[in-house]
Amino acid sequence: MTPSTPTTPVLIGIAGGTGSGKTTVATKIVEALGAQAIMVQHDWYYRDNAHLSPEERQSFNYDEPAALENELMVEHLRALREGRTVACPQYDFSTHSRTPQTVAVAPHPIIVIEGILLFSVPELREMFDLRLYVDTDDDIRLMRRIKRDILHRGRDIRSIQAQYYNTVRPMHMLHVGPSKQHAHLIIPEGGENTQAIDVIVGRLLYTLTKVEQVLDEEG
Amino acid sequence: MTPSTPTTPVLIGIAGGTGSGKTTVATKIVEALGAQAIMVQHDWYYRDNAHLSPEERQSFNYDEPAALENELMVEHLRALREGRTVACPQYDFSTHSRTPQTVAVAPHPIIVIEGILLFSVPELREMFDLRLYVDTDDDIRLMRRIKRDILHRGRDIRSIQAQYYNTVRPMHMLHVGPSKQHAHLIIPEGGENTQAIDVIVGRLLYTLTKVEQVLDEEG
Repeated sequence: MTPSTPTTPVLIGIAGGTGSGKTTVATKIVEALGAQAIMVQHDWYYRDNAHLSPEERQSFNYDEPAALENELMVEHLRALREGRTVACPQYDFSTHSRTPQTVAVAPHPIIVIEGILLFSVPELREMFDLRLYVDTDDDIRLMRRIKRDILHRGRDIRSIQAQYYNTVRPMHMLHVGPSKQHAHLIIPEGGENTQAIDVIVGRLLYTLTKVEQVLDEEG
Repeated sequence: MTPSTPTTPVLIGIAGGTGSGKTTVATKIVEALGAQAIMVQHDWYYRDNAHLSPEERQSFNYDEPAALENELMVEHLRALREGRTVACPQYDFSTHSRTPQTVAVAPHPIIVIEGILLFSVPELREMFDLRLYVDTDDDIRLMRRIKRDILHRGRDIRSIQAQYYNTVRPMHMLHVGPSKQHAHLIIPEGGENTQAIDVIVGRLLYTLTKVEQVLDEEG
């Protein structure tokens, strides 16, 4: 995980099922590293579905790799690694379409990328210097998802159940779960696992300390 | 995982099934840390079975926590943490008895403890600042075990099968496998997973660097 030159960014991929706690893990790692790190989300790269009818948008399968513009994300990660700033797309889940605005992401020493399907796309997973999979039991993930959908998205249990059985669960079993085999490390339980986060953050701080030393010696 | 004082040893427990590669992981971590680390093996603490008949020793269940003198190991780990050298027992698998010699283990900044049943014993697993579980598929573990028993222990496939079905497999399902739930991090595939070992070693070097800094400032 040592960068090829002191200033080459390290790319960390964090995957795991819906409700696994992977976004919490990614956020805590980025926060602990301060100005040295930035997060990029796979969700930003959902293909624009503005051309679909409202019914088609509702029943669209958002849990398979083809729903995302992976080739653009690969291009952006490559640019960041080479030290160039990229204009990341943003996605509006309420309209299932891309917003007109993009977000500028500048290169940082540590780039944390998170998303359920990151390791299901070969071109994407090969970009990461380190692959972390957040592994949480299916029933705990479902409880978290139902709570989120009811409390924060105003949805009812019948529509949550339909989506869960139609796409979320089968796609987890087809794409997300099997992608765990590509992980270098598995983090059980997600964001509450402070020891695991401490290990990852400490390892990254060690890289940053070494980079500083090299730059001091060169400068 | 930051020690309570700069010189308090950090205790890392590494568990996983037979053939998982946990000993390789533990060895690689200790070797990478050089004089700063030492390994202690749970196997050393097998209870002496010299009083059993040869038949009883052969059929003895070596895969349950009660086969080991866990209370002595807890005492030794506590002593090491407090900065005292301990005399660790050694076990001769060919005679199923303790050797008359002990091995002196001095306190080190990092103490790596490895064994299949480390996390199955509550008093023991609570001793570790970090718990790592090496998780390798059952068929790969079995292949490694059969190869080891045939090539290095001169055993035939009938006796290997009998031991596997009588104690190794049921005890893995009863004790070892479920103890994975106590791990802070899961390392897939064992010793060949260089990225995982790099993360753990880098994290520990970061602790050692910080300890050196504190000691420099104090000194």
